[in-house]
Amino acid sequence: VPDRLSREAAVAFDEASPLRDRRELFAIPAGKVYLTGNSLGAIPKHVPARMAEVVAQEWGEALISAWNTADWTQLPWRVAARIEPMIGAAPGTVHVGDSTSVTLFKTMVAAVNLRPGRDVIVVEPTTFPTDGYIAQGIARTFGKTVRWCDPADPAASLDDDVALLSLTHVDFRSGAMFDMAAVTAAAHDAGAVMLWDLCHSTGAVPVDLAASDADFAVGCTYKYLNGGPGSPAFGYVAPRLHDSIEQPITGWWGHARPFEMRRDYEPAAGVAQMTVGTPPVLALSALEAALEVFDGLSHDDVRDASLSLTDLFIALVEARLPGVLELITPREHAHRGSQVSWRHDQAYGIVQALIGRGVVGDFREPDVARFGFAPIYVTHADVYDAVEHLVQVLAHDEHLDAAYATKDAVT
Amino acid sequence: VPDRLSREAAVAFDEASPLRDRRELFAIPAGKVYLTGNSLGAIPKHVPARMAEVVAQEWGEALISAWNTADWTQLPWRVAARIEPMIGAAPGTVHVGDSTSVTLFKTMVAAVNLRPGRDVIVVEPTTFPTDGYIAQGIARTFGKTVRWCDPADPAASLDDDVALLSLTHVDFRSGAMFDMAAVTAAAHDAGAVMLWDLCHSTGAVPVDLAASDADFAVGCTYKYLNGGPGSPAFGYVAPRLHDSIEQPITGWWGHARPFEMRRDYEPAAGVAQMTVGTPPVLALSALEAALEVFDGLSHDDVRDASLSLTDLFIALVEARLPGVLELITPREHAHRGSQVSWRHDQAYGIVQALIGRGVVGDFREPDVARFGFAPIYVTHADVYDAVEHLVQVLAHDEHLDAAYATKDAVT
Repeated sequence: VPDRLSREAAVAFDEASPLRDRRELFAIPAGKVYLTGNSLGAIPKHVPARMAEVVAQEWGEALISAWNTADWTQLPWRVAARIEPMIGAAPGTVHVGDSTSVTLFKTMVAAVNLRPGRDVIVVEPTTFPTDGYIAQGIARTFGKTVRWCDPADPAASLDDDVALLSLTHVDFRSGAMFDMAAVTAAAHDAGAVMLWDLCHSTGAVPVDLAASDADFAVGCTYKYLNGGPGSPAFGYVAPRLHDSIEQPITGWWGHARPFEMRRDYEPAAGVAQMTVGTPPVLALSALEAALEVFDGLSHDDVRDASLSLTDLFIALVEARLPGVLELITPREHAHRGSQVSWRHDQAYGIVQALIGRGVVGDFREPDVARFGFAPIYVTHADVYDAVEHLVQVLAHDEHLDAAYATKDAVT
Repeated sequence: VPDRLSREAAVAFDEASPLRDRRELFAIPAGKVYLTGNSLGAIPKHVPARMAEVVAQEWGEALISAWNTADWTQLPWRVAARIEPMIGAAPGTVHVGDSTSVTLFKTMVAAVNLRPGRDVIVVEPTTFPTDGYIAQGIARTFGKTVRWCDPADPAASLDDDVALLSLTHVDFRSGAMFDMAAVTAAAHDAGAVMLWDLCHSTGAVPVDLAASDADFAVGCTYKYLNGGPGSPAFGYVAPRLHDSIEQPITGWWGHARPFEMRRDYEPAAGVAQMTVGTPPVLALSALEAALEVFDGLSHDDVRDASLSLTDLFIALVEARLPGVLELITPREHAHRGSQVSWRHDQAYGIVQALIGRGVVGDFREPDVARFGFAPIYVTHADVYDAVEHLVQVLAHDEHLDAAYATKDAVT
């Protein structure tokens, strides 16, 4: 193994990183190498104190007046305003509040409504399942059809029948990343609306929705945005569509004048018409606080760190365990998100054995070991240590012992 | 004013109440008489510590493994199992997770789908606005019609065209309560499906969905259930409908085998098919803890306390301020929820002046002063003190000074 793959070299990388002071903002348990930030982000250290304040003071003491004194009514828009610059979204184009799946539903219906003469929704069969399930539900409900595309060439499935192309920017299993601008252009050339699922992108890879001319996007906030378990999703609507969208879940929070409590629904102007119910204040407060760790970070620095971490991980595994694991994540930077996935017959056992050693990755059916690299808190030293543990696991057949343990759950 | 309306009599009532030890479970700020628990419930004292544990230990330390170690996957069902006995719902009939408005949407669509040949949804024009807005969105989306009924006689609007009768059990403005069993029977006689909005009922008035033969119900958890601001709603589906419902938001959490991550959607059995996205863990954890304050309480005792509090409030106001405020809440117990509302030209100023004195009620357009009585923490002494302050406000014209202050927001 060459010197550039030594632990000293890894530590030197970390010390020179523009993100070097960010790791300290997180409460990563001692001795843990946390490579599952693409499933549930780690907690920023200041979040517990902020949550205690929201719970005990805002809810507990201010009670109903906190809607004004703590400005809970604007809380969703404060959160949205923090997310917008992270995804190349203009001010007033992002909304938050519902789960990823509900946000996908209302967004997909709004998208399909823009192409009334077209009846096909194109989705990759390898997308995160809920994207496909939601599309299938919409198809059944509204008499549309889901067409499964080749993930290697979604544009090949476009034709005059396609209302919507819905893709996950970074694949949850392989970590492969689409060229957002090129695919969006292909969708538009075919007359289709383009929706991007940013669940495995936002906070870890550059996203520029405006430059890509995307129509809609939906993203998760509990992965690379560290909003806490089950934190609310965000949605994006291109400003040029704000006057023509129509979404079906017309709740009071999306009303033009909700507090006048009129009998008849009238959609709010702009992206606010995409919102539905009373905002989830506790969850949004955790998210609002968590997003502060990104203050002042450059997108380029985050991307550089992500590629440096995943490059090192790939190089170390292949140098120290040549031919043992099959890389399914693209090597080309342009096609790689911020995770690295390997195929191995005992992938499940490998992941379990690593967890037993404090290196937390996860397993995906049927034979994938998946490792996420949240550039804001994962270090090159973590990468080195993870591979060292992996070498030990395989050297001592620990993955065979672990193979029958209970399976872990969740995304 | 007779002796039975003295403060001593009020204190004696509290000391004899079977709920007398419950008030101490809540952190009501000193000097505050909190009569807005029908908008945002007060915080149980143990919730902050529980939230701190969930945030710092479950999320912060256990991280992704908390889905197993803290059993987050079952958290929604633990919450549902606590709500079921409070509303006369059999085990396995309640789901939680989305906002009230989203839960209304998926429930109303599921209800309308049960009557494919019928195109009318009947709603009261005085319902909480989101119920009507959601119905209007469904009508527009699915080619249905909203028919506004007379709140005094909803059954008069039923005919062969009606797919769904959707009513709020307790009116958010007046506090009037429907006879759930009788109205449900009328809906069924007309061949319609019956949906009850329990937002202003659950936790304060007796609800027996099974005995009433209701088809669906939706309820809020941040009012009388004290789940915290924006906490997730619950939904109910009668067990006899579990095999025939079809709801449109088919997210991965409602899949029969979500963690197998198959391509095609297959609804879970039972009420689980109504769920959609990854559960909001922080919000559900607060709610789960908050529900503990109801442990061991008798429904009859809660109802007795509620009626005793509202009876006393009405009697005191009418004895001490005869002819000044117009009662719009029904006097008859059978038609009264757990709130009392008064009409007055300066209702807004009265509410503001009372808030300035620590008595928190709220104002509803155009001229209603609304006071909620959460029987689990509001005392008869509170009621006496609130009326004393009201007398002082009116005696000193404080309501005229306050009339131009900023309006309060929210539900």
